[in-house]
Amino acid sequence: MARDNVFSYGDFSKTLHVKKLEEDEHVVLVKGGKTSFSFENGNHHVSNGNGNGNVVAHHAKPGWYADVPPGWEEEAHFFKVEKVLFHGRSEYQDLFVFESVSHGKVAILNGSMQLTEKDEFAYQEMLTHLPLCSVSNPKKVLLVGGGDGGILREISRHPSVEQIHLCELDKMVIDVYKKFFPDISIGYSDPRLTVHIGDGIEFLRSVPEGSFDVIILDAFQQMGSLAEELADNSVLRSVARALSPGGVMSCPADSFWNKHFSVTDTIEHAKKIFSGSVNYAWCTVPAYASGMIGFMVCSNSEVDVKHPLNPLNPDNYGVAKGPPKYYNSEVHTAAFCLPSFAKKRCLLPKSD
Amino acid sequence: MARDNVFSYGDFSKTLHVKKLEEDEHVVLVKGGKTSFSFENGNHHVSNGNGNGNVVAHHAKPGWYADVPPGWEEEAHFFKVEKVLFHGRSEYQDLFVFESVSHGKVAILNGSMQLTEKDEFAYQEMLTHLPLCSVSNPKKVLLVGGGDGGILREISRHPSVEQIHLCELDKMVIDVYKKFFPDISIGYSDPRLTVHIGDGIEFLRSVPEGSFDVIILDAFQQMGSLAEELADNSVLRSVARALSPGGVMSCPADSFWNKHFSVTDTIEHAKKIFSGSVNYAWCTVPAYASGMIGFMVCSNSEVDVKHPLNPLNPDNYGVAKGPPKYYNSEVHTAAFCLPSFAKKRCLLPKSD
Repeated sequence: MARDNVFSYGDFSKTLHVKKLEEDEHVVLVKGGKTSFSFENGNHHVSNGNGNGNVVAHHAKPGWYADVPPGWEEEAHFFKVEKVLFHGRSEYQDLFVFESVSHGKVAILNGSMQLTEKDEFAYQEMLTHLPLCSVSNPKKVLLVGGGDGGILREISRHPSVEQIHLCELDKMVIDVYKKFFPDISIGYSDPRLTVHIGDGIEFLRSVPEGSFDVIILDAFQQMGSLAEELADNSVLRSVARALSPGGVMSCPADSFWNKHFSVTDTIEHAKKIFSGSVNYAWCTVPAYASGMIGFMVCSNSEVDVKHPLNPLNPDNYGVAKGPPKYYNSEVHTAAFCLPSFAKKRCLLPKSD
Repeated sequence: MARDNVFSYGDFSKTLHVKKLEEDEHVVLVKGGKTSFSFENGNHHVSNGNGNGNVVAHHAKPGWYADVPPGWEEEAHFFKVEKVLFHGRSEYQDLFVFESVSHGKVAILNGSMQLTEKDEFAYQEMLTHLPLCSVSNPKKVLLVGGGDGGILREISRHPSVEQIHLCELDKMVIDVYKKFFPDISIGYSDPRLTVHIGDGIEFLRSVPEGSFDVIILDAFQQMGSLAEELADNSVLRSVARALSPGGVMSCPADSFWNKHFSVTDTIEHAKKIFSGSVNYAWCTVPAYASGMIGFMVCSNSEVDVKHPLNPLNPDNYGVAKGPPKYYNSEVHTAAFCLPSFAKKRCLLPKSD
């Protein structure tokens, strides 16, 4: 059911709403995880999928996409839109892809910035190589989420790895990335890969204890310090259980510039789950709120994750087309150095 | 000539245009270094000071300020405005101050983001302590520009310093910061300070060779690789001449995410002027384009600026009210670690 220049997603035709977009479309932001458009020329009318979105009308601007990440509502990052490439909804989520003038292709998942072609490599490389370069001889790697393929592309650079398992819930994500982001989805061409379409947490619970040398979570809300996240430790406990001795996990964490986030609280929380080294790292990613993102790097063993004991050989591309663009051993170590305010801020009351 | 809640600038009343701003004002961006407002409710009309600004009409949005730094025209950072505090024009430049919801008070100089209360300390501390902690016993320090006082506040933390000289062209900047940013302009209370209102370059040329152990430039366009900047070496030559043996200078440089900027080219250029160590460093500053800013740290001597030989004692506040918020010896060294792409990119043809 292809319609003009908008890629339609056939397999999910029952649940997808693929819209025909006019040349003069207005790209607007709708709070609450719904991205939508208006079709009336010259008027910021919003066509909202289910009618319950909270429309931020003052953000409406023809030809621009406004990114307002949750927790950063009083500012906005605008991207000039060259062309809308895809907008679809699977039974799980909403995916919106457009060509921007400044950042190349941009993917918005459930109304949240997922990645841009300009800077995706910074996030993908750091989230992958921080744990993989901290394990001496990683053989089995599990990636939960990350259906775009960028993390797979980065795992592929590690020759010691024998098995790569990907758990991705939403096949739409995989198919859309394969169509629009070939340099990212190239990660799927690694022959060591097994793809599991399904719930990553169920998968984690089904595998024997200590199954994986490295586990990368790219599917969840960033690790934060909100009470409701702290209360639900079951996911992280499943990860800790599935890690081999000396194994290391990584997942995204909030920016230390987010006033609602505390590195100290988050580390303290993670230490209740992982019995070894627990660290926060960060890197610059212009497309994300505050221009950076954090990472949690955790283990049940006392691993010195700040100094790569398994350095990456940049000449070993794996299935990628060239060497890493961001990661090197220097930035690995530097990523763990924090501004003084980020080391000090505590938001939660201390029990001791 | 105070008008309602807008601070008027008496001393420069002949050249300043202080506007009375309505409650329903629209804050809009005008390209070409002119910030202005509209007074008509519900209509994005632009009142431009001199009529030659290039109005970016699609950025107009009531109650929001759009920051579009030069060279980053295809994206924009929007700040929700709580209250406009000041808008004035001296004989040299245009200064606009507003209270934002997300970043506290924000200062816009000639239409360019100068600083926000939320993150000014990152820039001020790094620009100051990178050079000052790289000189063993700094006694004489020159700051060119930086009339806000934030760099002065940071210099003040160094007890070895005997003389601090500030050259600021525009007294309006000093007075406005003293009124609206007391935690920044507190730097003026250091008794070691001598303020020179005038042209910093003329001042630099008038002092004996080797006069200063540290020179900080906070007044110029960032050090970039554009041909016209490369052609004019006279400013940097004056700085190099005024540096003492072992002395170190610092100035802002572009973000390595700017596709028109090359760290390699800029270092190569600076090496033609400074006969010793020349390095690029960076730090995260959410308010600046791409969420970060660079620094050039240069010397006529072979100084290892990457490892602070004169570490900062955080307990010595100087005239500041507390310890540094961003800088520590760890982030000093980490600031010189660059992503692989930033180390490689060359934009200029190589002569050899």
